[in-house]
Amino acid sequence: MFLDIKLNGELPIYLQVKNYIKDMILRGMFRSGEKLPSTREFATILKVSRNTIITAYEFLEDEGFIYIEKGKGTFINELHINKQDQWCLDWRKKINKYAVDSEKLDIMKHELIYKKGMISFKSISPDENLFNMEDFKRAFLNRISLEGNRLLNYGYAKGYKPLIDYLLDYMTSKGVDIENKDILITNGFTEGFDLILSSITNEGDNILTENPTHNTAIKLMKLHGLNIVGIDMKQDGMDIEELINKVNNNHIKLAYVIPSYHNPTGIVMSSQKRVEIYNIFKKYKIPIVEDGFNEELRYSGSHIAPLAAMAGKGNSIIYAGSLSKILFPGLRIGWILADKNLVSIMESVKRSRNIHTSFLDQAVFYEYLKEGNFEKYLKKVRREYREKYKFAVECIKRYIPCECIYGEGGIHLFIKLHGINARKVLEKCYEKKVIFTAGDIFYVDEKGEDTFRLGIARNSIEEIDEGFKIIGEVIKSMT
Amino acid sequence: MFLDIKLNGELPIYLQVKNYIKDMILRGMFRSGEKLPSTREFATILKVSRNTIITAYEFLEDEGFIYIEKGKGTFINELHINKQDQWCLDWRKKINKYAVDSEKLDIMKHELIYKKGMISFKSISPDENLFNMEDFKRAFLNRISLEGNRLLNYGYAKGYKPLIDYLLDYMTSKGVDIENKDILITNGFTEGFDLILSSITNEGDNILTENPTHNTAIKLMKLHGLNIVGIDMKQDGMDIEELINKVNNNHIKLAYVIPSYHNPTGIVMSSQKRVEIYNIFKKYKIPIVEDGFNEELRYSGSHIAPLAAMAGKGNSIIYAGSLSKILFPGLRIGWILADKNLVSIMESVKRSRNIHTSFLDQAVFYEYLKEGNFEKYLKKVRREYREKYKFAVECIKRYIPCECIYGEGGIHLFIKLHGINARKVLEKCYEKKVIFTAGDIFYVDEKGEDTFRLGIARNSIEEIDEGFKIIGEVIKSMT
Repeated sequence: MFLDIKLNGELPIYLQVKNYIKDMILRGMFRSGEKLPSTREFATILKVSRNTIITAYEFLEDEGFIYIEKGKGTFINELHINKQDQWCLDWRKKINKYAVDSEKLDIMKHELIYKKGMISFKSISPDENLFNMEDFKRAFLNRISLEGNRLLNYGYAKGYKPLIDYLLDYMTSKGVDIENKDILITNGFTEGFDLILSSITNEGDNILTENPTHNTAIKLMKLHGLNIVGIDMKQDGMDIEELINKVNNNHIKLAYVIPSYHNPTGIVMSSQKRVEIYNIFKKYKIPIVEDGFNEELRYSGSHIAPLAAMAGKGNSIIYAGSLSKILFPGLRIGWILADKNLVSIMESVKRSRNIHTSFLDQAVFYEYLKEGNFEKYLKKVRREYREKYKFAVECIKRYIPCECIYGEGGIHLFIKLHGINARKVLEKCYEKKVIFTAGDIFYVDEKGEDTFRLGIARNSIEEIDEGFKIIGEVIKSMT
Repeated sequence: MFLDIKLNGELPIYLQVKNYIKDMILRGMFRSGEKLPSTREFATILKVSRNTIITAYEFLEDEGFIYIEKGKGTFINELHINKQDQWCLDWRKKINKYAVDSEKLDIMKHELIYKKGMISFKSISPDENLFNMEDFKRAFLNRISLEGNRLLNYGYAKGYKPLIDYLLDYMTSKGVDIENKDILITNGFTEGFDLILSSITNEGDNILTENPTHNTAIKLMKLHGLNIVGIDMKQDGMDIEELINKVNNNHIKLAYVIPSYHNPTGIVMSSQKRVEIYNIFKKYKIPIVEDGFNEELRYSGSHIAPLAAMAGKGNSIIYAGSLSKILFPGLRIGWILADKNLVSIMESVKRSRNIHTSFLDQAVFYEYLKEGNFEKYLKKVRREYREKYKFAVECIKRYIPCECIYGEGGIHLFIKLHGINARKVLEKCYEKKVIFTAGDIFYVDEKGEDTFRLGIARNSIEEIDEGFKIIGEVIKSMT
């Protein structure tokens, strides 16, 4: 019965033998109390050394599958597995409203899916081929050799201290006054925003936001039961008139804005407009969550300070940052810069959620940043993305009849058609193996039917040309 | 004015120059429109190459701090920073009940803190010196060379596929039937349990649990507004009579149990008792969250299958696993094994919370596991911890007068005194530079005043001897 074991080169042989016997026990091929072959016999049968079998038996004993009686031999222990009557329940009936809504609002489950061979403009992920892996590897090895084992044990909810200090400096270099402020490290922007809403808002609160806006943010606001007050976007950002009108007529608890390379429109709010909206929010005592989305990815134009820099020593701005939109999104590292007291409270919320963000990732990320690698990387990707962006704009002008192209950079474009339904365009393009994101998912109301977003970071120039051409032809065929 | 720049060896010089000028701009040392020295002049002043200055200027231009007018020179751009009227708000008045409770229940903020030079039995973290770092480094380098850049881009909410498959096999090797089940990767047990409660429970639901139990679990149950029904622990696990009584008299939505090396008592529930409680929960149709806490850390005794293995093809058990309690807690990797449909729903909840767990960590962890490193590591730590545990038990018997020592292994001990207040003992020990965890934080009611927990994984034999002696002396002085 032991002869069908197949040894291969991957795992140490004693582990293979152990796993094999364990598997037989679990499949009920031994009775409890049954005697196993002696280590010597077994070694002969399997043509391995006796020590291999001894080690395998030791593991099995450690795991409690067998026991050794001195002078008598090795025996199978009693198991209590799969012997009870089974019962099944319908989990769909057990879950609560929050979980139902999470699934309903999960666009990954409801939108058309990329299939191999397609040209996809769906994602706004960065191009991973631009990551400088050698620098990253070096950062890993350096940090491990400096701090080693300690990085793999428990850390602190607030984050890895050197990274926090680095990011405080980084925020200072954006003109932000960090006095009485602090930083909490989060698992990307998404966790950051969820922690903020979890700590500040209550069901039914009014939250103000640009319309359209980041779909994940809409999802989170809805999951928190908030009443979303949307402000239409003009070419340079929020419609100020509408803003004043809405803050006048609603009690707004919190505002959420993306001043730079706004998702999905790509609009960079001008300095003048930033000052204007900052002052309006101040007047109405509305704190702001500023999403620092792709702020680093500017191609041209004068420096534009984040709202957090305009606030000076004020504490009304909560800045949610994440370099990882363009660099290493897979690491899921972001941060919240806010009033010290607020960060201290959110630290407790973060601890209750998942103790802390991976300390290894934070430490390696810190090492990577402090060596100046990010700036080197930025210089490279700015050039790449700038060219791609320019080329994409040209292609749109050439191929796609539209009412307007929003934005002025970033790694995506947002298009408004002449009243043509973008979902219908998407369906037809999908047949022709081109996929993108319908714009309606970014709207907090029923608007945006005739809009769509094109992410271009991971596409070649050729793909952009070919794909946009197809989209343009589909649209022309519909008019 | 440029002469006080101090160049050092850490960052590339062009970045140092860039940061220096940027800092001056941010501190208002230039007027908007002011002309900067030419690259040639600047290079001479700083005694660096002209190319260094050119690169620094390029960065400053990219970031929008300066602009270049051909033939005229380089000028400072307009900034809008810190110029607005500031306003401050009192964030403590803005936060909601959930955040207030998170802080109130955050033991890290309210318990005595370890200070340098103390002997600490407070933590149940593993001893990081036992981590096999060379194996970990190799796993990192192997995985990176196989998948490289891709690992640092966005991944999937459910987790890294090879790790999920590995863990499905791993659960099978514990006797669990994985048909119609699936795995969701989480940021450790804490996130796993939070996701489960977030998906299934509603405020006011009754949840049943061992009493005492894992403090983080108590915190989460309270934060979710659940009504906790505690069952006292006997030496071999839950009091069955009390269990029957309570499930008879309360509508229980969900149960939470830690069958192996229960935290804080260290009790391993016997196979017989597992069968008994499984059948009781089945009879009352109560699904169970099984916390696989330190299940891997058994020193002796027969194999004990998790409850999830007893359920066979049934789907009433949600198993929350985490190897990271004894290996690499800093990575924060855990998993939930449960009914396929339930996992699919929780996948959406996970996505809404933080998109996914670090893909780099998952991939490196997978590589580490599949090479058999975990088993090698377990063999080593079992031996170490087993000896430490035995020694610690002896020391308690020698030094500490108590009513009983709970448990039979793990990396911590739980002591019940003869009616002496453990917090008072702790206070006095703290003065003598010994710290541990008062047991009351593990109780869901007012019990446990005379109990405390001693974590021993990171202490030397000498520290255990010395520290336990001090604790014993303090207790004796109080009787």
